[in-house]
Amino acid sequence: MSAYKLIYFESRGVAELARLVFKQAGQKFEDVRVPQDQWPNVKEEQPMKSLPVLEIDGRKYCQSAAIVRYLGRKFGLMGSDEEEGLVIDELLEMFSEMMNKHIVKIYMDQDDTKKMELLKAFKEDSLPVYMNLIEKRLEENRKKNGEDGFYVGSSVTLGDLTIYNYMFAICTFMGNFGLDPLEGRVAISGLVTKVEQPPNIAKWIKERPVTDH
Amino acid sequence: MSAYKLIYFESRGVAELARLVFKQAGQKFEDVRVPQDQWPNVKEEQPMKSLPVLEIDGRKYCQSAAIVRYLGRKFGLMGSDEEEGLVIDELLEMFSEMMNKHIVKIYMDQDDTKKMELLKAFKEDSLPVYMNLIEKRLEENRKKNGEDGFYVGSSVTLGDLTIYNYMFAICTFMGNFGLDPLEGRVAISGLVTKVEQPPNIAKWIKERPVTDH
Repeated sequence: MSAYKLIYFESRGVAELARLVFKQAGQKFEDVRVPQDQWPNVKEEQPMKSLPVLEIDGRKYCQSAAIVRYLGRKFGLMGSDEEEGLVIDELLEMFSEMMNKHIVKIYMDQDDTKKMELLKAFKEDSLPVYMNLIEKRLEENRKKNGEDGFYVGSSVTLGDLTIYNYMFAICTFMGNFGLDPLEGRVAISGLVTKVEQPPNIAKWIKERPVTDH
Repeated sequence: MSAYKLIYFESRGVAELARLVFKQAGQKFEDVRVPQDQWPNVKEEQPMKSLPVLEIDGRKYCQSAAIVRYLGRKFGLMGSDEEEGLVIDELLEMFSEMMNKHIVKIYMDQDDTKKMELLKAFKEDSLPVYMNLIEKRLEENRKKNGEDGFYVGSSVTLGDLTIYNYMFAICTFMGNFGLDPLEGRVAISGLVTKVEQPPNIAKWIKERPVTDH
């Protein structure tokens, strides 16, 4: 069995999805959280001078999305065939795009009035494009696997953990501005609730360090 | 055998890597290039109202990077184990980041003096972080597989095609400003040249439509 060490800051950020994958898989890992004052030293030891980094038996790998896909595959959470894997990957890319193109930019804006305008525009114009495809995929899987289905197949995959993780982040952020990205999205809301239920995930959500983001 | 249709615009853009994967694999696909004046009609038929879209036996999938990883896996170009797959995926994420965080932004800037400044800063500050890790991975593989090695293992994978494809795009763009991103990067330059040699890829590079980007 490999020894895993996940190195990141004291936040959920772009490492939390990897943590959720470890927890869902019931896989032990070292959850290293670097305090800001130690970062200058830790930085020098990282291949890209950035985090997260996953160490597998001492070898370091970068890029959060590559890391979660690797762990998902390793622990059997990428679906039952390559097409299900593609649907999960498509979802991951959608959330990366949503975060990088929209949420992070809005988050960085210092002007609260401007922030509110940008968030409203995001909710009306861009968000539906992503949410519609997510609902389409959920509906496709409902037809195939009935009400017991998840994002793909009939058990939890990286797809479900991805939706839970990013919707949690986006809901938290937009909620501060009185906006609900899940408004009218019954199927997606239902899935988010469902992913919180499995014992490993429920335990982790309860015990994980409380951080701002 | 599945029927593949890759739908994109009349350019290399973010679809070219998928085309290279098809060519390297010797796999037939329909290379649909939508002219601008037909785009409004085609747009309505796409799940995210954007391109590229990959149709597999009539079912549509989105997100260029998810598509190339799927094709890479399907055609045996993701390395010989999950760790090699992770190194290839890490590389893909690095180039996505480089394009989205830097190149696209600089490309969109309308002021040529500003563009030149941003490109110089990119070349000095950000580019080396990526290039150093790529060289580190190449060196690791050279130690394992000798001079016959590629990015991982000892045959062409999605890793090599990724380096070739994005370095071609970045060299073309920076070359217009008299800058060479491969300056002093002997190992990476060597790999780019090597990827142009295999008959399927050489033929495609010669016969593919000439487009600005």
